[in-house]
Amino acid sequence: MASLSDIGVAAAINILSAFVFFLAFAILRIQPVNDRVYFPKWYLKGLRSSPLHTGAFVSKFVNLDFRSYMRFLNWMPVALQMPEPELIDHAGLDSAVYLRIYLLGLKIFVPIAFLAFVITVPVNWTNGTLEHSNLIYSDIDKLSISNIPIGSDRFWTHLVMAYTFTFWTCYVLKREYEIVATMRLHFLASERRRPDQFTVLVRNVPPDPDESVSELVEHFFMVNHPDHYLSHQVVCNANKLSDLVNEKKKKQNWLDFYERKYFRNQSSRPSMKTGFLGICGSRVDAIDFFTSEVERLSREIDSERDKIVNNPKSVMPAAFVSFKTRWGAAVCAQTQLSRNPTIWLTEWAPEPRDVYWDNLAIPFVSLTIRRLIVAVAFFFLTFFFMIPIAFVQSLANIEGIEKAVPFLKPIIEMKATKSLIQGFLPGIALKIFLRFLPSILMLMSKFEGFISLSALERRSATRYYIFQFINVFLGSIITGTAFQQLDNFLHQSANDIPKTIGVSIPMKATFFITYIMVDGWAGVAGEILRLKPLIIYHLKIFFLVKTEKDREEATDPGTLDFNTGEPQIQLYFLLGIIYAVGSPILLPFIIVFFGLAYIVYRHQIINVYNQEYESAAAFWPDVHGRIIVALVVSQLLLMGLLSTKKAAQSTPLLITLPVLTIWFHRFCKGRYEPAFLINPLQEAMMKDTLERAREPNLNLKGFLQNAYIHPVFKGGDDSDSDATTEELNLKPALVATKRQSRRNTPLPSKHSGSLSP
Amino acid sequence: MASLSDIGVAAAINILSAFVFFLAFAILRIQPVNDRVYFPKWYLKGLRSSPLHTGAFVSKFVNLDFRSYMRFLNWMPVALQMPEPELIDHAGLDSAVYLRIYLLGLKIFVPIAFLAFVITVPVNWTNGTLEHSNLIYSDIDKLSISNIPIGSDRFWTHLVMAYTFTFWTCYVLKREYEIVATMRLHFLASERRRPDQFTVLVRNVPPDPDESVSELVEHFFMVNHPDHYLSHQVVCNANKLSDLVNEKKKKQNWLDFYERKYFRNQSSRPSMKTGFLGICGSRVDAIDFFTSEVERLSREIDSERDKIVNNPKSVMPAAFVSFKTRWGAAVCAQTQLSRNPTIWLTEWAPEPRDVYWDNLAIPFVSLTIRRLIVAVAFFFLTFFFMIPIAFVQSLANIEGIEKAVPFLKPIIEMKATKSLIQGFLPGIALKIFLRFLPSILMLMSKFEGFISLSALERRSATRYYIFQFINVFLGSIITGTAFQQLDNFLHQSANDIPKTIGVSIPMKATFFITYIMVDGWAGVAGEILRLKPLIIYHLKIFFLVKTEKDREEATDPGTLDFNTGEPQIQLYFLLGIIYAVGSPILLPFIIVFFGLAYIVYRHQIINVYNQEYESAAAFWPDVHGRIIVALVVSQLLLMGLLSTKKAAQSTPLLITLPVLTIWFHRFCKGRYEPAFLINPLQEAMMKDTLERAREPNLNLKGFLQNAYIHPVFKGGDDSDSDATTEELNLKPALVATKRQSRRNTPLPSKHSGSLSP
Repeated sequence: MASLSDIGVAAAINILSAFVFFLAFAILRIQPVNDRVYFPKWYLKGLRSSPLHTGAFVSKFVNLDFRSYMRFLNWMPVALQMPEPELIDHAGLDSAVYLRIYLLGLKIFVPIAFLAFVITVPVNWTNGTLEHSNLIYSDIDKLSISNIPIGSDRFWTHLVMAYTFTFWTCYVLKREYEIVATMRLHFLASERRRPDQFTVLVRNVPPDPDESVSELVEHFFMVNHPDHYLSHQVVCNANKLSDLVNEKKKKQNWLDFYERKYFRNQSSRPSMKTGFLGICGSRVDAIDFFTSEVERLSREIDSERDKIVNNPKSVMPAAFVSFKTRWGAAVCAQTQLSRNPTIWLTEWAPEPRDVYWDNLAIPFVSLTIRRLIVAVAFFFLTFFFMIPIAFVQSLANIEGIEKAVPFLKPIIEMKATKSLIQGFLPGIALKIFLRFLPSILMLMSKFEGFISLSALERRSATRYYIFQFINVFLGSIITGTAFQQLDNFLHQSANDIPKTIGVSIPMKATFFITYIMVDGWAGVAGEILRLKPLIIYHLKIFFLVKTEKDREEATDPGTLDFNTGEPQIQLYFLLGIIYAVGSPILLPFIIVFFGLAYIVYRHQIINVYNQEYESAAAFWPDVHGRIIVALVVSQLLLMGLLSTKKAAQSTPLLITLPVLTIWFHRFCKGRYEPAFLINPLQEAMMKDTLERAREPNLNLKGFLQNAYIHPVFKGGDDSDSDATTEELNLKPALVATKRQSRRNTPLPSKHSGSLSP
Repeated sequence: MASLSDIGVAAAINILSAFVFFLAFAILRIQPVNDRVYFPKWYLKGLRSSPLHTGAFVSKFVNLDFRSYMRFLNWMPVALQMPEPELIDHAGLDSAVYLRIYLLGLKIFVPIAFLAFVITVPVNWTNGTLEHSNLIYSDIDKLSISNIPIGSDRFWTHLVMAYTFTFWTCYVLKREYEIVATMRLHFLASERRRPDQFTVLVRNVPPDPDESVSELVEHFFMVNHPDHYLSHQVVCNANKLSDLVNEKKKKQNWLDFYERKYFRNQSSRPSMKTGFLGICGSRVDAIDFFTSEVERLSREIDSERDKIVNNPKSVMPAAFVSFKTRWGAAVCAQTQLSRNPTIWLTEWAPEPRDVYWDNLAIPFVSLTIRRLIVAVAFFFLTFFFMIPIAFVQSLANIEGIEKAVPFLKPIIEMKATKSLIQGFLPGIALKIFLRFLPSILMLMSKFEGFISLSALERRSATRYYIFQFINVFLGSIITGTAFQQLDNFLHQSANDIPKTIGVSIPMKATFFITYIMVDGWAGVAGEILRLKPLIIYHLKIFFLVKTEKDREEATDPGTLDFNTGEPQIQLYFLLGIIYAVGSPILLPFIIVFFGLAYIVYRHQIINVYNQEYESAAAFWPDVHGRIIVALVVSQLLLMGLLSTKKAAQSTPLLITLPVLTIWFHRFCKGRYEPAFLINPLQEAMMKDTLERAREPNLNLKGFLQNAYIHPVFKGGDDSDSDATTEELNLKPALVATKRQSRRNTPLPSKHSGSLSP
């Protein structure tokens, strides 16, 4: 059991490491040579030009202005200065609302922590239960509910606190839901014309022996939406083509690398081996090899492109159908077309950037089966992951390590080592395990067949949260307890087991405090350093970059990873809410995390991340729902705890809490959730009417024609894509857009989601 | 514990009582004087005229043709002869599909019973576990899984059977869902024009300081559905008016009664007391009193009617909005209108007969709170009802009774009494408790604010099922077990308790067999006798009936009570599915119930019941869902049972069963359920197009004008309603229809739901 001083050491280490990260960041960011790594968003927006062009040679790479080193924390106030509306214009609503999650944490926990330290902590401290018990305990546990004698009237304090905290949390949640819903509606209403406002994705077009998919879609909508149907765009299975394009890109990179190598050292042409990882196989001239490879792939790409355009079999039974009015699209997206509910499925088209093209090719029939397979796989993943964690946790106990490897005892017994192990190990072990996870979960979501990136990320986030809840939270409590108390359990009668668990839950607080410090504090501080992108950028600059355009592409700003970030925050909400009543000592650590993370991520969103898509905060119902889950869990745990404390008269009062919370959730769901799912007809009609008045002669068909074409048709980096584009122009259903790499074009600010007409 | 001979006695008694009921029915139904009680449906349809008009005086009342007494069971084949399409025409789809639930029971359980008796029963019987144990057991238990020794390989039989039964049940369920969905769609497609096809109910119209509700609705839909909006009908709060009308009707009945009394005995005018129940208060002349009362009420009704028509405050913020096309209505019903999802709520209008007018007046804001209140109330109702049942069940144990009232011991110990008590008492006690319930549950649903009778009945049915599941099923198993085995439990270690429960579940089979016989066999046979309507009819004929029209009204055909009937059937499904693997001895009793009930209810539906509304089998998803619940519960119980039998190697195989079953449910839900909720646009468009081609000059507005007027405005039986109708004609929004009592008019066959244009 970690004592107060162990916690102190761990805190010192983590604060120090956070400080080191910040210092490193402060030094690295003001070096011009790193400018593109730490401010890529401004480059993408075209608002910042490379500092390499100006000034003396040395100052191109190293900042020699020593005064700027003194103000190494001045990015913090700068990050906080940008007002929210400007932030929405700058980075999109998704990012701005994402930041509000951290703010929500502060709003919930600061008043709760204040109340808890003024009221609960003194009530807990002024008892002597633990001192007179034979349980292992630390000073920190004396601040918790464990220190109150069984059957004491002091539990009424905790009951009242549980009510207060629940009501406060619900109040804040409701207010936040309302604000976010308004922000979303305002954002959607103030947007310019976007293709997805007029477009509906139709899936599972039934096969027809006489008509092609395209004809069938046209006829069906001509009949069933006669007044509103405008045009459509069939979906082609271009997965193979996009694989080829990607492969070509990779080979092109190698070609660039070797060309550059040869350019620097013209004495010998670079050579390589063709086999596995360049280790085995015959030795060939690298430049020749990759040139021929690139040419071969170009030919293959051309023939594949032809095949897709000309072969009706490559057309999937799905189409993007566009309507003359937003009203028509809203109606079509919200209604069922056919009497058979598994064909002619309509849903809002995601915005073009948000479409996950690979999954459009999945036939609908297999979706149900895929869902079952993924559910089973996730179940196994979740429950068999527990074994290694339990093992590591048992090692993380000093006594456990000493027993396992007795010869290390002298080293471990040194005070510094001991504190280090107890402060770091449990947190780090967990963290490493969890690193593997998000990509597996994302693969699962992709396999399941969601058709937009935002949906993929939301589903992955849900799974990640469930995983963390079971494995990190429950796993840590139950396994940890089990390893320590198993001996006791086996010799106790059935009635005493829940008591011991009830006592152990608050005692796990110390473990979670170290976890918060390692994962939260140091993790967030490490985030700002961007070590991985920094290294990759410099490697690329050194090996690949030939032109200024290449340099632009070498900067990968990355995106805010909703699928891992949000569940991580939710874990802190869960811990905070659960420990708020029992062990409020956890709360300051969580508040520090929320504050630090808010500043860091605000900085990153302003300067670094460039979101791939804009879902207009569609994730908020998930965020809200998970905090409600945390609330209900905390209430149930408290009920269990108090019932073991013989404070049984409080049970009926505690049962009403989850009932009220769930009712509150249903109320919020009914009141606010539709704003995140549905485009109401009134809004659509209003925008239509305005538009008709302003631009009576709008050529909507032209505007929508090329919106939903698979990105590989939208002109890649190939020299030969022009030919294809021309060819495609002959086929109206597959017309490619003008060649344009969105990456390099400054996005129109304010409407990062809209394509200019 | 009831032995085989006890069961035999109970079976004999129940078969005898069923036989007596059938005999009584056979005699009563062929008496001309009862003709209207046993064939009311034919009278309502105008296809049968009163036999009282023809023949000799005596044969008007008593059937003297003795040959007809010989064929006393010939109603059974007659009931089965009507083919299903004719049955749908005759009694509506709801009734025809309701009968299919019984057929479904037969389809599921006959093959299962056959398999079980060929395979499982011999496997169970050829063991001697119970004989060598010290548990109390009966011969019937020897047929069950209890008789197999712990850890035996014979449990593989039960495992394979569990799989077979699950797959068979799912196969039958899927096929049935498909058939019912097709029937529903065909029924809806072949219907004539009905007002509800064009109409949407709009609730929670937001208050507007400048416009009345009617104006606001008109403007809103003019703007948001400009091409489709036709007309609307605001909803008035006429609850007080309909109370007054009902009261007047009651007083009118008393007036008729006293007038008839005076007519028979003109010597003295009847008198009565005005106080409570006619017991206290001052004595007055009854005819005068009721005449003045009726007059007073007529005046009050007139003034209330005026108030509703002229006072804008009586207009509720809700309206029935009609569209020019079915397509427009389908679109409006399926989409969200306003950005605020709690105002301008649209849903399909129920057919006019199905509207529960009282609840249209509930403001929407209170609905969430009402739902919470009802949920809490239902929880308490469910869990506090267990106490009396537990008490009665404990008494139903012979030994328990002997201990409680020792002086009755000699009587109880007589063999006949003992069998009687053990065969009847537990079932009857439960049955009496359950009699109180449906009306309470219906009140709850009404309070909750559903706006159609069909929704009210479906919700009540769900609650009734939950109640029965917890109290009848779980209550009987756990409480019964608890009372018998509590002593054992207290002296056992923790590991042995689940074992004892596992053994006890199959041993409860004998209790449920008696329950099935009393509730199922005798109950169904009693149903056909219609004792209560028979008595009421004859009382009315004697005391109230003056004219032929009165006689028509005296017959109350009643309706099929879905809210109690369906959950009752579901209990048999639950018992059958749960005991199919462990104690197949239950199955023949259940099959007899399903067969008997099918014949009896088919007869009743053809000859007696007259449904109030037609929901086109909207209840089928509930039926399907509950059978799935029964399947999953049975699989979990079997898992518990087998794990206590040390057949642990089967556990992973058993876990996959509920997973597959739930997946199957989700599949069916996605595939078939929308057919029961949504009117697809394709269908609507098809019917619109056909209609436009056939009747290009249709006056739809005229057709829809009076469809959704509160029934009290639709002309009652009052002499003064003509005046009101005229008055209402001045106000287009509240025009009353032609005076017409649907009760007395033969309904157009085939389209029992459609109002002739």
